[in-house]
Amino acid sequence: MDSPAQYIDHTLLKVDTTSNQIELLCEEAVEYGFASVCIPPNRVALAARILYGSETRVGTVIGFPFGYEPREVKVFQASEAFAAGADEIDMVIDLGAACEGRLEVVKDEIERLVSVAEGKTVKVIIECCLFDQSLKKILAEIAVVSGANYVKTSTGFSKHGATLEDVRLLAGVVAPRAGVKASGGIRDWPTCQAMIAAGACRIGSSHGTAIVQQWFKQESLD
Amino acid sequence: MDSPAQYIDHTLLKVDTTSNQIELLCEEAVEYGFASVCIPPNRVALAARILYGSETRVGTVIGFPFGYEPREVKVFQASEAFAAGADEIDMVIDLGAACEGRLEVVKDEIERLVSVAEGKTVKVIIECCLFDQSLKKILAEIAVVSGANYVKTSTGFSKHGATLEDVRLLAGVVAPRAGVKASGGIRDWPTCQAMIAAGACRIGSSHGTAIVQQWFKQESLD
Repeated sequence: MDSPAQYIDHTLLKVDTTSNQIELLCEEAVEYGFASVCIPPNRVALAARILYGSETRVGTVIGFPFGYEPREVKVFQASEAFAAGADEIDMVIDLGAACEGRLEVVKDEIERLVSVAEGKTVKVIIECCLFDQSLKKILAEIAVVSGANYVKTSTGFSKHGATLEDVRLLAGVVAPRAGVKASGGIRDWPTCQAMIAAGACRIGSSHGTAIVQQWFKQESLD
Repeated sequence: MDSPAQYIDHTLLKVDTTSNQIELLCEEAVEYGFASVCIPPNRVALAARILYGSETRVGTVIGFPFGYEPREVKVFQASEAFAAGADEIDMVIDLGAACEGRLEVVKDEIERLVSVAEGKTVKVIIECCLFDQSLKKILAEIAVVSGANYVKTSTGFSKHGATLEDVRLLAGVVAPRAGVKASGGIRDWPTCQAMIAAGACRIGSSHGTAIVQQWFKQESLD
């Protein structure tokens, strides 16, 4: 197959991320041909300057990683992110509301963010590890009908990251109306390949360069 | 000694926190006489309604737990929290900027939040586990001169929580101009007691009721 780079959101969301690390991440993203960089909100302007004119998109996170900011705060965060140059946002839903079955709250906040995005990409993080199969399906359907471009399995900061089972379940609900982004714990090419085979069309990983290098090595041997 | 309840910010910051859990937390806070409840931002209005007329203060978190929201987002978050009824905010500094030595960024965002607080309580989370002794002291001094009421050791979501050494270090810098809040991993009365002896005047814990019960048991035996 072609390089998996086009699937990968090259991700650096560590708390002590420095400007130099963002610069390196952006250079790698261009060199490898990653779909995007996924970085902290206060680094969007820097990445947008570096990546201006390239095909690499700038992505950031909203309500991350706990999702318990009020709706108006998420809307403001998203507006600021787009104004700073973001092409894509990965937003965490109100997980507490979802746990309580207050699904209209979840729907409303996704709709508001999609509206603010004005056609830019919105990925909705469902944090699959918190919910049963039935609720995961309902949340994925809510995301799609609210206008999300992707549903995303995980923040990478809860009980576990992406599973093949969850990717298949989400893809079964949302494809082809929306894509599935798998993230959390994807560190090597075999795992990445299995996620794509299960239906993921984006992969969030902090190990993008290693994944592509492993893919290349395998291709060379085949 | 008197009940440690007056020192404790009764804390529930889990991602899947429900309204019922917030209600119970508020009831316990009044019953035990905790200083405050420390809860997700989207639960502030609910807690403020429940605690209206009581002496228990409503606290929430800003830029939590990673601190990498842009300054304007933190300012907006704080305004919304105070408007919803918060008496206290625990804000995470721009940890990436602190790591890079861009200390004017840290100072500026604290000053802005203190300004928005209009006399309400601002606690500044330094995330001590990320910095060396010298930078911890500098960050604590910046917090105090910027008008913070407390410096706080930890989010509880990084490498480690409060240590006695950090509490002593922070108290040495800020007392008596500001207080020290110790948080992260404080789950029993002996640990809580040691933190207070080291100079903490607030304790953030999700185990407040257990701590007070252990204190009471020990007092009864003495």
